[in-house]
Amino acid sequence: MKLDEMVITKAIVEDFMNVFLDYTEVDVAIAGAGPSGMVAAYYLAKEGAKVAIFERKLSVGGGMWGGGMMFPRIIVQEEARYILDELGINYREYKDGYYLASSVEAVGRLASETIAAGAQIFNLMSVEDVMIRDDRIVGVVINWSSVELGKLHVDPLSIRSKVIIDASGHDAEICRIVERKIPASLKVLGEKPMWADVGERSLLENTKEVYPGLIVAGMAANTVAGGPRMGPIFGGMMLSGEKAAKLALSKL
Amino acid sequence: MKLDEMVITKAIVEDFMNVFLDYTEVDVAIAGAGPSGMVAAYYLAKEGAKVAIFERKLSVGGGMWGGGMMFPRIIVQEEARYILDELGINYREYKDGYYLASSVEAVGRLASETIAAGAQIFNLMSVEDVMIRDDRIVGVVINWSSVELGKLHVDPLSIRSKVIIDASGHDAEICRIVERKIPASLKVLGEKPMWADVGERSLLENTKEVYPGLIVAGMAANTVAGGPRMGPIFGGMMLSGEKAAKLALSKL
Amino acid sequence: MKLDEMVITKAIVEDFMNVFLDYTEVDVAIAGAGPSGMVAAYYLAKEGAKVAIFERKLSVGGGMWGGGMMFPRIIVQEEARYILDELGINYREYKDGYYLASSVEAVGRLASETIAAGAQIFNLMSVEDVMIRDDRIVGVVINWSSVELGKLHVDPLSIRSKVIIDASGHDAEICRIVERKIPASLKVLGEKPMWADVGERSLLENTKEVYPGLIVAGMAANTVAGGPRMGPIFGGMMLSGEKAAKLALSKL
Amino acid sequence: MKLDEMVITKAIVEDFMNVFLDYTEVDVAIAGAGPSGMVAAYYLAKEGAKVAIFERKLSVGGGMWGGGMMFPRIIVQEEARYILDELGINYREYKDGYYLASSVEAVGRLASETIAAGAQIFNLMSVEDVMIRDDRIVGVVINWSSVELGKLHVDPLSIRSKVIIDASGHDAEICRIVERKIPASLKVLGEKPMWADVGERSLLENTKEVYPGLIVAGMAANTVAGGPRMGPIFGGMMLSGEKAAKLALSKL
Amino acid sequence: MKLDEMVITKAIVEDFMNVFLDYTEVDVAIAGAGPSGMVAAYYLAKEGAKVAIFERKLSVGGGMWGGGMMFPRIIVQEEARYILDELGINYREYKDGYYLASSVEAVGRLASETIAAGAQIFNLMSVEDVMIRDDRIVGVVINWSSVELGKLHVDPLSIRSKVIIDASGHDAEICRIVERKIPASLKVLGEKPMWADVGERSLLENTKEVYPGLIVAGMAANTVAGGPRMGPIFGGMMLSGEKAAKLALSKL
Amino acid sequence: MKLDEMVITKAIVEDFMNVFLDYTEVDVAIAGAGPSGMVAAYYLAKEGAKVAIFERKLSVGGGMWGGGMMFPRIIVQEEARYILDELGINYREYKDGYYLASSVEAVGRLASETIAAGAQIFNLMSVEDVMIRDDRIVGVVINWSSVELGKLHVDPLSIRSKVIIDASGHDAEICRIVERKIPASLKVLGEKPMWADVGERSLLENTKEVYPGLIVAGMAANTVAGGPRMGPIFGGMMLSGEKAAKLALSKL
Amino acid sequence: MKLDEMVITKAIVEDFMNVFLDYTEVDVAIAGAGPSGMVAAYYLAKEGAKVAIFERKLSVGGGMWGGGMMFPRIIVQEEARYILDELGINYREYKDGYYLASSVEAVGRLASETIAAGAQIFNLMSVEDVMIRDDRIVGVVINWSSVELGKLHVDPLSIRSKVIIDASGHDAEICRIVERKIPASLKVLGEKPMWADVGERSLLENTKEVYPGLIVAGMAANTVAGGPRMGPIFGGMMLSGEKAAKLALSKL
Amino acid sequence: MKLDEMVITKAIVEDFMNVFLDYTEVDVAIAGAGPSGMVAAYYLAKEGAKVAIFERKLSVGGGMWGGGMMFPRIIVQEEARYILDELGINYREYKDGYYLASSVEAVGRLASETIAAGAQIFNLMSVEDVMIRDDRIVGVVINWSSVELGKLHVDPLSIRSKVIIDASGHDAEICRIVERKIPASLKVLGEKPMWADVGERSLLENTKEVYPGLIVAGMAANTVAGGPRMGPIFGGMMLSGEKAAKLALSKL
Repeated sequence: MKLDEMVITKAIVEDFMNVFLDYTEVDVAIAGAGPSGMVAAYYLAKEGAKVAIFERKLSVGGGMWGGGMMFPRIIVQEEARYILDELGINYREYKDGYYLASSVEAVGRLASETIAAGAQIFNLMSVEDVMIRDDRIVGVVINWSSVELGKLHVDPLSIRSKVIIDASGHDAEICRIVERKIPASLKVLGEKPMWADVGERSLLENTKEVYPGLIVAGMAANTVAGGPRMGPIFGGMMLSGEKAAKLALSKL
Repeated sequence: MKLDEMVITKAIVEDFMNVFLDYTEVDVAIAGAGPSGMVAAYYLAKEGAKVAIFERKLSVGGGMWGGGMMFPRIIVQEEARYILDELGINYREYKDGYYLASSVEAVGRLASETIAAGAQIFNLMSVEDVMIRDDRIVGVVINWSSVELGKLHVDPLSIRSKVIIDASGHDAEICRIVERKIPASLKVLGEKPMWADVGERSLLENTKEVYPGLIVAGMAANTVAGGPRMGPIFGGMMLSGEKAAKLALSKL
Repeated sequence: MKLDEMVITKAIVEDFMNVFLDYTEVDVAIAGAGPSGMVAAYYLAKEGAKVAIFERKLSVGGGMWGGGMMFPRIIVQEEARYILDELGINYREYKDGYYLASSVEAVGRLASETIAAGAQIFNLMSVEDVMIRDDRIVGVVINWSSVELGKLHVDPLSIRSKVIIDASGHDAEICRIVERKIPASLKVLGEKPMWADVGERSLLENTKEVYPGLIVAGMAANTVAGGPRMGPIFGGMMLSGEKAAKLALSKL
Repeated sequence: MKLDEMVITKAIVEDFMNVFLDYTEVDVAIAGAGPSGMVAAYYLAKEGAKVAIFERKLSVGGGMWGGGMMFPRIIVQEEARYILDELGINYREYKDGYYLASSVEAVGRLASETIAAGAQIFNLMSVEDVMIRDDRIVGVVINWSSVELGKLHVDPLSIRSKVIIDASGHDAEICRIVERKIPASLKVLGEKPMWADVGERSLLENTKEVYPGLIVAGMAANTVAGGPRMGPIFGGMMLSGEKAAKLALSKL
Repeated sequence: MKLDEMVITKAIVEDFMNVFLDYTEVDVAIAGAGPSGMVAAYYLAKEGAKVAIFERKLSVGGGMWGGGMMFPRIIVQEEARYILDELGINYREYKDGYYLASSVEAVGRLASETIAAGAQIFNLMSVEDVMIRDDRIVGVVINWSSVELGKLHVDPLSIRSKVIIDASGHDAEICRIVERKIPASLKVLGEKPMWADVGERSLLENTKEVYPGLIVAGMAANTVAGGPRMGPIFGGMMLSGEKAAKLALSKL
Repeated sequence: MKLDEMVITKAIVEDFMNVFLDYTEVDVAIAGAGPSGMVAAYYLAKEGAKVAIFERKLSVGGGMWGGGMMFPRIIVQEEARYILDELGINYREYKDGYYLASSVEAVGRLASETIAAGAQIFNLMSVEDVMIRDDRIVGVVINWSSVELGKLHVDPLSIRSKVIIDASGHDAEICRIVERKIPASLKVLGEKPMWADVGERSLLENTKEVYPGLIVAGMAANTVAGGPRMGPIFGGMMLSGEKAAKLALSKL
Repeated sequence: MKLDEMVITKAIVEDFMNVFLDYTEVDVAIAGAGPSGMVAAYYLAKEGAKVAIFERKLSVGGGMWGGGMMFPRIIVQEEARYILDELGINYREYKDGYYLASSVEAVGRLASETIAAGAQIFNLMSVEDVMIRDDRIVGVVINWSSVELGKLHVDPLSIRSKVIIDASGHDAEICRIVERKIPASLKVLGEKPMWADVGERSLLENTKEVYPGLIVAGMAANTVAGGPRMGPIFGGMMLSGEKAAKLALSKL
Repeated sequence: MKLDEMVITKAIVEDFMNVFLDYTEVDVAIAGAGPSGMVAAYYLAKEGAKVAIFERKLSVGGGMWGGGMMFPRIIVQEEARYILDELGINYREYKDGYYLASSVEAVGRLASETIAAGAQIFNLMSVEDVMIRDDRIVGVVINWSSVELGKLHVDPLSIRSKVIIDASGHDAEICRIVERKIPASLKVLGEKPMWADVGERSLLENTKEVYPGLIVAGMAANTVAGGPRMGPIFGGMMLSGEKAAKLALSKL
């Protein structure tokens, strides 16, 4: 066939515009396309929710790519193995209950299954602010990440959302915005020293609604609650994403 | 189960080091984990070749993530649709023969299938130099990308390889090293103005052995041969990767 | 009235996207929203041509804002006074035939009249490449400027155009792309020492088609032809823009 | 006519210096040439006040150029439509009471009408400090912005002014200087989460004298009072500028 | 002999991997390979302890290389002369009890004797975090320094250690991590003005266990305790390292 | 004893000044304190020559610290083992004729033995230029490296030397200065692809006088002669340093 | 005569080192070679005191070079005219009691007369710390400024001084070191809004001993005491320098 | 007296403006206020010529401040001693014919005497371009240096001058502009290795008219002619400045 650049330009712009306009009102908006954000989106989309992830970087996957100390391997423990199976991520058992996977394959599989399940990932977009009405978060305020990067002075746009999941990792960005702007709304305690065992467990407890309409998942959950870091073990992150999805679904 | 950080540390280091030691001698070494590099690795691994990709960045996928102008969609034309099917990438037809896919899903699927097929991706590693014996490339010289990034003065290590595929994109990095160091070996002509139609076709012709042991694939192929740019259409890239895999296999 | 953020988001995205999609095929594409580019667009739009300016920066106006040495005043000579009158820019006579205007007012008036006349200005977008078919430029390849700024690896999109005007100033960016990519197509000689009198006159002569489909205007015209710089006098720039418009119209 | 560079140099320097010397004592000094600062200056100049705007950047217009998320469109609501009409900014109705305008045209028209009305805009100049006598601001202390940019150690100069309007946007720069240097003078509460509806309304209430001689306008007004952000809707900004002008006039 | 690059690659990777895996559990982990850290490691290794130093930079030696004001000479006082003798560092007496040595020779000798004694130095690695169990430090969390340098998002790995010595100098990095993460655990008072005499003496007193399992040595000891700086005199640093070694040994 | 800062200041400044003044005229000046430069200095000093090394960085050791790919191990082959023995560097045999050593210990031992042998190392000083009389290099022109680092405009000082050894590594800095400033004096061919075996051998051949009074050693020798890179094997570097020392001695 | 580079090298190093050694113990150490620091040094040297100025930059003169807003003119008021006369700085009366001088000439004259009077200026050196004994400053701790600039880790050296004058300008660097390191010693209030008249007067009052052995002069005096800024008027600065000299002399 | 900021502002702006307007046409324009430029200006002004120096930096003095290797001393040889006497710079004889002076005093005296003699120094201004008419330089095109520093796009202004002296040092900036813009006009050969004796002598020979209306002085003279560097000896620089003044005078 003979290729026409104009068709390519139009196809991309039209499709993106239609999706973006459609997604100005969603069921769930997720900040961050790391493992917990993508797992949450996967389970939400699977249940038919309209879900959008906003990811600041060009690529998704967060801290998963580099495995431990740039050696691209991750560990998943027994309790979360079923999520690897669900997503089709290959692994081998290293020792009783410790499963080793390629960090690159894991990100790839997670991203592709999440989108295949129906979620939309908007990369290169940051959440700059939130919308709050009657003491409840009702939306996110987004912008191209390049606006911040290039120190441009450009206004953001707004997305309405029934539930917001803060899956932005160590920084707990959405929670910090709420903490700073709404006095006495919530308190981010900061992460504690590494303790894989406790950290993995506390992730689940800490995955909860921290402000009306705002659920926190993944490392952001431990950061808000003052839980420990965990290192390159990702079972808790995935379980936290799954729990966040369930919590969000219960509110739709 | 109770988690032990020492097991995690050992699992990751041991597994990586064993693989890395095993991969100091490979059948095919590929520079760059963009679409053409990963497709080449996929087909090579599927045929049982021992193949390693060295990717300079933390994430794989090259220029695919951002789609066109940061709108995360890519186009694949009819001729390459079977590769989307082979890899399980979802798409919809936009117009006769133009298929639209999510750029994020495409990268994710490509990465996970490539690794599942048996290829090893070493991210955060750059190819600094090559090994040449008797006018034939016989290996690559690699280093952590962070060495260059941090302007550290640290020596590289060497990997022996029967065939090398330069899939480093616009820069054609490996070809430029050979051009600079071995006078009269090959000539990098540089890319020409955008022409999707011609560019896509010429990619296939330009995918070839440009120096004994060195095959060039993807945009690097057009850069070496003076072919045009193509924009966010990725069929030619994938077909080029497949052809490079076949050429490489014929030399093992 | 009660304001709804969703209406605002949709209004902006929808309107922009429709215009952008409509402008993937234009009569004239202009690189650079400095004085010559805007004057050209003004006269073209006034004659009913479909014209798009792509401006790399957030703001338009190029080198006009700062007047001479950051003193925000510009000079326009007698020959070009009628353009000031046409656009409604206020001025006072300093000496016989030398007219002084506020550089800020001049940019403001130029921008607003150009758009009011019907031209579209796409700011924050750069021309990265051109499209050439049968030895004739037939379009520009554009990207968000922030892609280059943030050193992101993101593919551009294409815009078809019957005529292209390079009004990118001292750098003559489009001409340099053509010079580099199409050997023997044209030669950018570079600007010569300042000589306001000769420079102003030569601008008009040098405003011409330098490659099939490519007209050069403003300081870019002198840069290509090896004409002198002029300093904070803007009559020649405006006359050059007007001439470029006429040349372009004759080709539609 | 034959052009002489010396005449150009003298015309620009002489005119600027005379104006600058004349403007060392003004009725109203405005920090920031964004929409509220320029609207304030427009109405003040129209009433015959001697008014100077000091703008840190080379270009005026503040956050208006980029519209929403780099899509160059702005929204103005019904209540402020008459200012668009007053200034001659073109618009179209998107939905009941929501008016869409080109952000570039809006800046251009605003800048040119403001200067045509008689205001002086000094771009590339920053307000570094204020002058306070008997608990009242009586002037601003200015410097070339490039002094700060180039980290040069160069002393500023002073401008006497009967009233000062802080229209410096999100940062509320003048108010922060006063807050830091004069304990217990005023308190900058910081902006709250986005809420276009409330934000637009509160802008008007918050536009007031916050310290003797210091009026705050535009986003700076909301920043000082702890009001919400608004996004790419500019009616409130313009109305705030108009109100600031009226307040200032009442004090001359 | 004929050299084979593959043997070189394998030798280096294999040896490093084996040592690194072996050193995931150590008797003593030391942060910082400056003079106090290396002296501590020297005495520990001499007594048969399994000791690892993690040094952030490519080179060891800390602030010793530059002597005083880039004049590469250091002073050691009478009390510490025996350590120079022990390590074989050449010196000459400048005045009663003041010994002058080459700063470069001193670093070289210290580094080589420390390793010869059996300690392992891991350069280019930073301590990012600690592991705490039952109010006792039980390990360090390390990463390649280049991860921080290149602002990469990559997880660290953990090393178990019976005792940790913070010999990180002025910053007292490990102590600051503990201070920030474990409220009321310890307080870093910061260094006081220079006073060589008092500083050198207080170093010994301040070298102690500041939190269960955490010993502080060298300038970090004075920083924690609020002791003075000392300048280019290194006797106290060395004596502090020796004392830290003894304290650590008593806990194994 | 009671310490007096004034004694410390005077001791350091006085000793440095006397040595520096004494070393304004030397037998041999060496640029670069990497392995070849230090080995050369060691053998020269051992034979009683007055030798000064100027090292641009704070620390000596060049590319040796990081071993291969940041794994701090180096390889030395059989032919150069005697130099390890001479310097007292510990090693173990990995395979027939391949000796493994700690890169950190190796640098430490090399630096300390070189100085103990009587050579002076001036760290933080760069060679900016050379002195040439009657077509012969007779000295080096040095400056603090921080002058270049801080982009200060400060004149250098001169050191007279009977022989100069360029041991500046890959850049062959001194040779490039001579090449640029004295047309037709010598030609730097640039390094070729990695080939440990050939590179190690050619180092010895390429270690020679390349311009009257200028001997080239270590990697700089291969860079000038167009020889290959070698990676983290350091036997050839050390042998080259020894040969350079012999050549230099023959000219004193 | 025939020039010999070695003589030049020796002359400069010998002379500097002897002076530097001699100046390790001084009567008065001054931080900052701006107008107040140099005037203080001038009057001190004239009275025979041994005085050293440490200036962080390559050039002396501080904020005087750029006059007001980069227009190189300064104003000196009647009260300080006699200092212009004393130093031989040319001026003209602009209006009753306002004297205009070239800022460049003023710096030049001040620097040359200060040194001619016998003071030593050590440029490119920063005061990093102080020495305190029995609640009294007894010296300064200095380093090359390039150490900080190049982020090198290099120890400083100490200078004993009977009195220290902090003439470091707006930052009041020495006072801030004392404030931070010796709790409750002194409090730096920070500068207040510009008020030339009050500022000039308060400079004299604020020029005093703020901690035993530490006199503050020039803008640093106002910064410590919370006095206003003054702009490009330098009479108060000079009078403050003279007063500081008298205060210091009274303590010798 | 009571100070009024408005008088200060007006005095500075008015005086500068009048001088600047007056100096748009001069006898001699000098690029660079290093030692040769200032000596040239001194002698020219002494003879009554109208002379302007444009200096890119805030401070004048060029490479003189730092003496040799940051030791602030300079050497002047016998032949140029009379210029020290003429300017009143203090010195002492180090050895037969070698005179040592403080680099700081030398700059200070040179600057103040040059201005006292009647020359105008415009600091913070760069020469961006030249004006050429009938193969003769007739003026310079200047801009604030901060425009380039801040990467602003602002047009320059022009200054007419009968003669131009390029005293811009190593870069020979004006000559390089002419070389680049006027093919075959002149050739900048670049500086050669250091040779104080030859360099000092050749400076005088190389000080000449290199293009009609363009005289080259100081290090720029050696750079154009391919003469050697000289280091911190400044006699030749001063003699070159004096000769340039004489040459210029002969052309007025």
